[in-house]
Amino acid sequence: MKIVLIIGDGMADRAVEALGFKTPLQVTEHRNLDALVRNGSSGTMDTIDAGVAPGSDTAHLALLGHNPYEIYSGRGPFEAAGVGIEVRPGDVAFRANFSTVDANNIVIDRRAGRIKDRTAELAKDLNMKIAGVQIICRESTGHRAALVLRGKGLGHNLSDTDPHKLGEKVKTAKALDKRSAKAAKVLNEFMKRSRAILETHPVNIERKKQGLPPANSLLTRGVGVVPTIEKFEEKYGIKGSCVCGTGLIAGVMRACGLETILVPKGGDLDSDLIAKANHAISLLKTNEFCLLHVKGTDNRSHDGDVEGKKKMIGKLDEMIGFLTTNLKEDAVFAVCADHSTPLEVRDHTADPVPLCISGRQVRKDGVQRYDEISCSKGALGRIKGTRLIHILLDLAGKSKLYGA
Amino acid sequence: MKIVLIIGDGMADRAVEALGFKTPLQVTEHRNLDALVRNGSSGTMDTIDAGVAPGSDTAHLALLGHNPYEIYSGRGPFEAAGVGIEVRPGDVAFRANFSTVDANNIVIDRRAGRIKDRTAELAKDLNMKIAGVQIICRESTGHRAALVLRGKGLGHNLSDTDPHKLGEKVKTAKALDKRSAKAAKVLNEFMKRSRAILETHPVNIERKKQGLPPANSLLTRGVGVVPTIEKFEEKYGIKGSCVCGTGLIAGVMRACGLETILVPKGGDLDSDLIAKANHAISLLKTNEFCLLHVKGTDNRSHDGDVEGKKKMIGKLDEMIGFLTTNLKEDAVFAVCADHSTPLEVRDHTADPVPLCISGRQVRKDGVQRYDEISCSKGALGRIKGTRLIHILLDLAGKSKLYGA
Repeated sequence: MKIVLIIGDGMADRAVEALGFKTPLQVTEHRNLDALVRNGSSGTMDTIDAGVAPGSDTAHLALLGHNPYEIYSGRGPFEAAGVGIEVRPGDVAFRANFSTVDANNIVIDRRAGRIKDRTAELAKDLNMKIAGVQIICRESTGHRAALVLRGKGLGHNLSDTDPHKLGEKVKTAKALDKRSAKAAKVLNEFMKRSRAILETHPVNIERKKQGLPPANSLLTRGVGVVPTIEKFEEKYGIKGSCVCGTGLIAGVMRACGLETILVPKGGDLDSDLIAKANHAISLLKTNEFCLLHVKGTDNRSHDGDVEGKKKMIGKLDEMIGFLTTNLKEDAVFAVCADHSTPLEVRDHTADPVPLCISGRQVRKDGVQRYDEISCSKGALGRIKGTRLIHILLDLAGKSKLYGA
Repeated sequence: MKIVLIIGDGMADRAVEALGFKTPLQVTEHRNLDALVRNGSSGTMDTIDAGVAPGSDTAHLALLGHNPYEIYSGRGPFEAAGVGIEVRPGDVAFRANFSTVDANNIVIDRRAGRIKDRTAELAKDLNMKIAGVQIICRESTGHRAALVLRGKGLGHNLSDTDPHKLGEKVKTAKALDKRSAKAAKVLNEFMKRSRAILETHPVNIERKKQGLPPANSLLTRGVGVVPTIEKFEEKYGIKGSCVCGTGLIAGVMRACGLETILVPKGGDLDSDLIAKANHAISLLKTNEFCLLHVKGTDNRSHDGDVEGKKKMIGKLDEMIGFLTTNLKEDAVFAVCADHSTPLEVRDHTADPVPLCISGRQVRKDGVQRYDEISCSKGALGRIKGTRLIHILLDLAGKSKLYGA
């Protein structure tokens, strides 16, 4: 018995005035989703806790059964894992931007003209060792990168070097506690050396020739320490996998020990969700669990794009139809969002997300439709995100008896 | 976006035989409450936890997001704050009665003939210093008062000096742990000195002349230590306020850092709830949150007064109509009780309370009526009291993202 957990990122919503104070899920046709609902039990879920608006990273940690309050210190570690750095517990990791600064280190362009190409060459030349600390830099999509400090005695309570504003000087990292003094010193020395390397880097000389802003400084933010996370297979005794549309989610999944396929062209209306479903079907040949993450619903929500969100829900519904038709193994399916991203808010909120769990043995609670209100009438009631994986393992016959 | 939290104290009930085994909320007409329900989501709430019958003090701490198990040790600190003593963390505080005792300190009248006047003069003369400990006494309504011990090395595990029975002697306070030995000693010395002061006090000489029982002894109970409570604005980043009908609630609110108006003539069928609503509207000009507390529903319940409780619910409904009509700012409304006070029990019980949350963006869950049963069918499910404030902050756009 396989477990398939489908996440519509930011799919849940509030009452939307443009939709007659209904939610996109309420007004959209999605017969494959509804077929799942009718074959099981529904409910609502607080991914972290009631009243807590989750990030996608903390939400996905919770969905894999981890308490983010115990292991999450910042986004950096998961971005770093997402771009393929083999992070280790204790590594201090950052999100970074390639940016353009002037001779006085004033930020002129936080994204270096939205640089797209050859950032791998830049990042490669920024790997170095300072005071016994190994520094790993890896490019991500566009102007983005990840930076890791690996060594002894590194704290992670550091201020950003990113001033987060144009026209301001690149900041000196400050240690916010004693333990982080060494990390601050190393980071600041790295900022100086990397600045010099980038200024004269062939890629930037070429960019200047072409009239493009040079990517001559990194800016760091989102610092966190890589936590010790019990790997999925150790924790649950089965192999887990993931297909996802963003580096951040890929990072969370890899950090949690899931075999992860990051579909590069994911994330919006042009996503090939059928390809994603095919990846899932293929991963489920050797894994017993697959988390299938769809990003586009969140992107359309952040843009306040009512019609786009409805279309994206339609695409997700088609993907589910394809998956349930083509997955040959018996499976327990669950569908939820990682958090709400209401169209009128254009950001994550704490509103609980609809959840359905579907399968041959799952109690049929009579709920007919997959939406925030219909699911709230279901037999699952209102649960917390960290419990979902345990419920799914149990329904798939993979839980352990507690007691005798 | 403002937040208005309306509390009908003890409003929730059980099946009442005199009402055909329905609750007062089920049989009473309340179209303004129902209008709120129809414009949002409903549910039920365990203010503290399922099966825990809350006091009004612990319930209101939870409603402001504090875990009462971490900070509550007794009612004294909140009574003291409620009568306007500027309590400080570490103060040991008591509820006190002015009572009448005979020459052998046998209690003849626990309320000194329900003394109403001139207790301020009595209380004023009981402020003193014993063994370096400052003693603050302040009158409350009627025969009630609050007493505070302020000094170093004071524990709060003390037995009551109030024997809680007529015909018994005023008790010597006993330290129930080693840390509280000094506080017991100081309190017992205070009991002796205050007894002497009160016996010969001009107010009591006058009372004796008039044939009234003298208020010649204090009786203490409800001891607790003033906790360190994070102030509302620090905790949530917005200014909070309260309009309430009892000193105890005012004390809780002040201790939590809310700008508080205690309406003196509150608390029963003669309450001017429209005046309360006007206070709330005015507080909401400079505050983003207002808790509006109505006491009369609880008083009618403690008296087992079926018709009175129904009338009080009607008055609360009128108040809500006035408030929603006259508050000009956009707001998220929530209505609940702090606990159930069933008419047949005449005391607080643990039955969950009905809750509705209402506002433009709030999901419309189709519930039509505000009562214990209808609300239990709503999209909120069954939540805990400490989460409510977080949910409301999120719906008003004032929550912080946890993660990225």
